Amino acid sequence: MTEQKLILVTNDDGIHAKGIHALVSVAKKMGRVVVVAPDKPQSGMGHAITIHHPLRIKKLTLFDGMEAYSCSGTPVDCVKLGIYEVLQGVPDLILSGINHGENSSTNVLYSGTMSAAIEGAMENIPSIGFSLCDYNADADFSAAVHFAERLIQYVLKIDFPSRLCLNVNIPNIPKVKIKGIKICSQAHAYWADRFEKRLDQFGEAYYWLMGDFIDQDQGVGTDLHALKNGFVSVVPTHFDLTAHAHLTTLKNLENA
Amino acid sequence: MTEQKLILVTNDDGIHAKGIHALVSVAKKMGRVVVVAPDKPQSGMGHAITIHHPLRIKKLTLFDGMEAYSCSGTPVDCVKLGIYEVLQGVPDLILSGINHGENSSTNVLYSGTMSAAIEGAMENIPSIGFSLCDYNADADFSAAVHFAERLIQYVLKIDFPSRLCLNVNIPNIPKVKIKGIKICSQAHAYWADRFEKRLDQFGEAYYWLMGDFIDQDQGVGTDLHALKNGFVSVVPTHFDLTAHAHLTTLKNLENA
Repeated sequence: MTEQKLILVTNDDGIHAKGIHALVSVAKKMGRVVVVAPDKPQSGMGHAITIHHPLRIKKLTLFDGMEAYSCSGTPVDCVKLGIYEVLQGVPDLILSGINHGENSSTNVLYSGTMSAAIEGAMENIPSIGFSLCDYNADADFSAAVHFAERLIQYVLKIDFPSRLCLNVNIPNIPKVKIKGIKICSQAHAYWADRFEKRLDQFGEAYYWLMGDFIDQDQGVGTDLHALKNGFVSVVPTHFDLTAHAHLTTLKNLENA
Repeated sequence: MTEQKLILVTNDDGIHAKGIHALVSVAKKMGRVVVVAPDKPQSGMGHAITIHHPLRIKKLTLFDGMEAYSCSGTPVDCVKLGIYEVLQGVPDLILSGINHGENSSTNVLYSGTMSAAIEGAMENIPSIGFSLCDYNADADFSAAVHFAERLIQYVLKIDFPSRLCLNVNIPNIPKVKIKGIKICSQAHAYWADRFEKRLDQFGEAYYWLMGDFIDQDQGVGTDLHALKNGFVSVVPTHFDLTAHAHLTTLKNLENA
């Protein structure tokens, strides 16, 4: 008999989001699942950790009696609390998502979903972040669930590279139209930001962050290209931000 | 007459921290400085952006009449608001810091200081994050100021690579003992996290994130090695998280 896998599940849309329930429905086929997820939406929290406030966790009976905790902190807090306080041990796999909305290209930096997976990689635990390219709270996760199951099974089977995680995005098209899975690089895209200025009841200004996603790089091999062409994109993601090529081009800076 | 440079300054310790005042004292020698910085400490906020709450900015007269705004959001919010609302244009340089505390190695991911610089790189604006390896609120920034001035002058002089920023850490030793500047790669280090569990007045548990910094990688060429040996470390930092080597090693995943 093979040993049962221990799987930690989190997300950034909060423990009540449809996407994490979809992910748990897959994960529970593969092992013992423990959920530690934010008690409220934490989208856009990036790799934030909570150091100026205490953290709270609360045991919930949400997932058919499965062990589940809501956490007052960020997705990265959930991973840290999950490992060091709830499990007090190392899970075999960390799954994050399924996010309501795309986390392709440079969105990986802002994404709480992916930051949870990156935190897993930093702990040297195989980790996968899943995102469906549909922001709808009631999105249809059936295609995402299908590909998540295939990818999780594969990852549990192989000798997963150390200090790595996967950024998986599923296009918002019916399952039968999805052409397959593509290993991709992170496209260069950016948000053309703007702020909507409003006045409050005292006449004081406040701002909402708005913006348009400019996908200027849709080159073959990028995640944006794969998604536009009907594939599930998988970006092998690490956390070495060194621009290695510039170690030599900027060498003269040592004489600044 | 050369055109005056426009320099946006931010940080994550908040607009009242000693470190940002030290940085402004250098920046103002190089051009027109506009400060947009958090109204409260935002350490550990990583690349978080504020999307669930409105943002506020407030004009302050803090820096000898220099244009300065406090912002209710994160360091990345400050950069976005600085560019799109305050300046309504592109600065020549973004400076972040000087942080009270080290942002070497993997700390770059948690660091609000460095995330502000990375956001600048994403906007294709030359950006530098400075951190002094001293968490003291009243730290001595004289060595940091000296090296910041040299590095800023150099960066303003060269054709700075696109989509890049610099992660500069200054060791906590007297200026005369600093041996120079080293271009480095990001060391692999991690936080061995633990949580201190306490009970509140109602007997409910809450947790403080604690941890020890484990600098397991002190190899020659890393920022940790440079700092330990008395050098200022400069890591050329980008935001492509693709683990390019694994685009081939994980190719079979397409058949998962």
